Amino acid sequence: MAADERVGLDGDEVAVRAVNSSFYAAFEARDFDAMSDVWEHSDRVVVTHPGWPSLRGWARIAGSWEAIFRNTPFIQFVLTGEEVAITGDVAWVTLDENILQATGGADGDHDELAGAHVAALNLFVRDGATWRMVAHHGSPVGPGG
Amino acid sequence: MAADERVGLDGDEVAVRAVNSSFYAAFEARDFDAMSDVWEHSDRVVVTHPGWPSLRGWARIAGSWEAIFRNTPFIQFVLTGEEVAITGDVAWVTLDENILQATGGADGDHDELAGAHVAALNLFVRDGATWRMVAHHGSPVGPGG
Repeated sequence: MAADERVGLDGDEVAVRAVNSSFYAAFEARDFDAMSDVWEHSDRVVVTHPGWPSLRGWARIAGSWEAIFRNTPFIQFVLTGEEVAITGDVAWVTLDENILQATGGADGDHDELAGAHVAALNLFVRDGATWRMVAHHGSPVGPGG
Repeated sequence: MAADERVGLDGDEVAVRAVNSSFYAAFEARDFDAMSDVWEHSDRVVVTHPGWPSLRGWARIAGSWEAIFRNTPFIQFVLTGEEVAITGDVAWVTLDENILQATGGADGDHDELAGAHVAALNLFVRDGATWRMVAHHGSPVGPGG
């Protein structure tokens, strides 16, 4: 049965999906410690936030998360089209981030909700029993996309 | 000498840099066959052109290159900040694409040159003696970036 073939998810794929979910949970909770746990702490890690230039190394990436969390009073992700690929000790997840977020006014008083659509590629490397994020690349999808 | 330490590039890194260069050479030449040679022809490959939603599978990706090549009379890349990381049979290259391209008018007569800045992540998997691209994600870097 075709359905049966889909039941037995590979253990690695389960683990990769779990850490990918942890990334978005940390983002929604704006929890820096949880976000820190997701990432490999090394010089080779890279993040490209939508519309930003790429930032390399955990120190700069950590700073970007602190800035984003400080300036994001609310953010919610609905993830669609999630696909996982694994080769050896490397896994990558591609998905669509459908985002609802508060865009604070200058005085923080009049937050408004805005939607955004981001195409993301998340890259993970196996670290013993877990997987660590080594790259997150999110890009804005235009209205014509 | 510090210079000596940089001479002995790892053989894998040389090969990855070569295929990454082949990707941009094929793009500049708008040579579909050369671009096809760079990619793994599978369902798991994914491309995210700047501002586009992600496209999955070689068939859709091939179609996107044909459309881009048909509508790009001229494109030139100056690549900066290229960094290579390799884990086992997977390699990723992050870099900045500084682009000069012709934006054709509707009648194709009055092309004008325009610049663009794109942050890119290119992902490759080893295939015997060569490496094949499995993901290209390029995102526009905004003027405030």
